[in-house]
Amino acid sequence: MTRFEPKNPDYRAIATDTFDRQRAMQTLGISIARLEPGEVDLAMPYSADFTQQNGFVHAGVITAGLDNACGIAAFTLMPAGSDILTVEFKTNLLAPAKGERFVFRAVVVKPGRTLTVCEGRAYAVQDGVETLVATMTGTLMALPRRE
Amino acid sequence: MTRFEPKNPDYRAIATDTFDRQRAMQTLGISIARLEPGEVDLAMPYSADFTQQNGFVHAGVITAGLDNACGIAAFTLMPAGSDILTVEFKTNLLAPAKGERFVFRAVVVKPGRTLTVCEGRAYAVQDGVETLVATMTGTLMALPRRE
Amino acid sequence: MTRFEPKNPDYRAIATDTFDRQRAMQTLGISIARLEPGEVDLAMPYSADFTQQNGFVHAGVITAGLDNACGIAAFTLMPAGSDILTVEFKTNLLAPAKGERFVFRAVVVKPGRTLTVCEGRAYAVQDGVETLVATMTGTLMALPRRE
Amino acid sequence: MTRFEPKNPDYRAIATDTFDRQRAMQTLGISIARLEPGEVDLAMPYSADFTQQNGFVHAGVITAGLDNACGIAAFTLMPAGSDILTVEFKTNLLAPAKGERFVFRAVVVKPGRTLTVCEGRAYAVQDGVETLVATMTGTLMALPRRE
Repeated sequence: MTRFEPKNPDYRAIATDTFDRQRAMQTLGISIARLEPGEVDLAMPYSADFTQQNGFVHAGVITAGLDNACGIAAFTLMPAGSDILTVEFKTNLLAPAKGERFVFRAVVVKPGRTLTVCEGRAYAVQDGVETLVATMTGTLMALPRRE
Repeated sequence: MTRFEPKNPDYRAIATDTFDRQRAMQTLGISIARLEPGEVDLAMPYSADFTQQNGFVHAGVITAGLDNACGIAAFTLMPAGSDILTVEFKTNLLAPAKGERFVFRAVVVKPGRTLTVCEGRAYAVQDGVETLVATMTGTLMALPRRE
Repeated sequence: MTRFEPKNPDYRAIATDTFDRQRAMQTLGISIARLEPGEVDLAMPYSADFTQQNGFVHAGVITAGLDNACGIAAFTLMPAGSDILTVEFKTNLLAPAKGERFVFRAVVVKPGRTLTVCEGRAYAVQDGVETLVATMTGTLMALPRRE
Repeated sequence: MTRFEPKNPDYRAIATDTFDRQRAMQTLGISIARLEPGEVDLAMPYSADFTQQNGFVHAGVITAGLDNACGIAAFTLMPAGSDILTVEFKTNLLAPAKGERFVFRAVVVKPGRTLTVCEGRAYAVQDGVETLVATMTGTLMALPRRE
C-alpha cells in the first residue's frame, strides 16, 4: 500500500546508489532497512564512538540519521536526473538516545517539483522495545544532477 | 570584553571536561578553539569519512559541530552542578560544506535558569577564506547533574 | 480512545478558560472545535482582514492558530496550578491558505514535567475538502501559575 | 552602507506595494519603519486585541511581524517580476511580548536565486527601552509573479 507514485521507475536503484556513495553513512554504520516511494527506514547499531558525555548517542549523529532518512524518502519521488540537497531541518530531542540500535523512519509529507517536506522519527531499540527519541521536520530540494 | 558573567567560576574547566568526555567529538576530530563565557568556537579538519554523495561534509556532521558549540556556549553560563541537554535545534544549510577545515561558532542569545537559547554558525575554510555554510538556533536545558 | 491520562481532572474547564482569556483568539475568530487530553482541534473562518498580498490567509495567522492548538493540547496534560508558555515552534508552509475555513489540529508527541512537545497541522477547507496547508512542531513549558 | 546590491532598481516601490497589499498587516497595525536592500524594520503598536491570556502580545502575532519582516527583506533582493512565498520559519520566544510598541528587524543571511534565508528579531519597546522578545530564522522562495 503505497501513497506516492514515483516519477522515476529506477527510484530504488538510484536512491540506494546515492545512499551508498555517502561515506558518512558507512562510517556511522547506517544502512537502509526499508525503502518505499516516499518512505524510508534506516538502521544504526549503537557505537561508543559516537556518544556524548553520558554515553548516549550524540544528537548530531541522531540528526545525521534522520536527515538521511528524510533525504532518501524525498529522493525516491524526484524525477530521473535529479540531485538532492537539504535546505533545512529541525530536530526535537525527546529522550536520551540509549539503546542497542536505532531506527530512523521518514515519510514525505508534501512532495514538490522543487521542494519536498519530510518528517522523520528516531527510535532507540533496547530488548526489542522501541522508544521515540527524536523528531525531525526537513525541507529537501531537487536540483538537476551535475555531470 | 565579555558580555556574560559566568555563575560558575570553574566554567572553563567544567565545560572543557564535558566536551572531552564526548567520544563523538574525538571521533569527528572536533576540538575547542576558543572558549569564553557564552561564546565558543570549535574546529574540525575535513575528513572523507564524514562526507555525503558529492564529497562535501554531511549535514548531520555539520549539525553535530553546531549543536556542540551551542551546548558548550550555554554550559559556560550554567551554575555549578549542572548537566546539560539539547532540547531542540534548527539548522539551515546555506552552501556546500566544502573546505580544508570547518569552524563552528556559537553565542548565547538568551541565558536562562532552565532554558538557554544559542545561535551558531558553521564556516568552511579553504585557502584562508571562510564561507558561511550553515546556521543553527538551539535550545539547551540545565539539569541537576546526576552523580 | 484516549492516549493520555490528564493529571488535572478539571483539565477541560481550565484549558477552555485559558483559551477564552486570549483576546487574540476572539479577534482572529478562532474557537475550540474538539478538546481531548493531549489533542485539540481549533476552527477559524476565512476573513479578508487577515490575508497576505494574494488573498490567502497570512502565514502568521496560520501560525497563531497552530501555536494555540499546540498550547492547549499541551495544557490539558499539565498539573493543576500550571501556567503555560511557548518556548519555540517551527512552521512549514505547504500550500496556499485558501479556503472558507481552517482547522488547526494538534497532538502531544511527548508530555513532560517541564517541557511538552506537540505537533500541529493546519488544513484549509473548501467545499468540504480539506487540504493540508502547514505543519508545526512546538515546545511548550509548564510554569507555576502566577496569582 | 549597504551589504547587498538589489537586482531590481524599483525594489523599494515593489516591496512597499507588496507590503501594502497585505490586509493582515493593516489589521495588525504593522507598518514599514525602515527599508534597505536586504534589511527591513517593521513597527507595531500594542493592541489588547492581539493578546494572549496574560495580556502579552500573542506569539502568533509576533511571528506574523517577524515573517513579514523576513519576507520583505528577502523580496528587496529578488529580480523584477518575482512573487515571494514563505517556505518555513522557526521562532524562539525569549521573553514576554510586553511593551507599548514592537519592532521587527530582519536581515538577509543568504540571498539565492530560488531560496533566501533571513533572520529576524522582535523587540518590545517600553519607556524607550528595547527588549529582545523573539528570534526567527526563515526561508523564503522567489516565484515568477502570476499575472
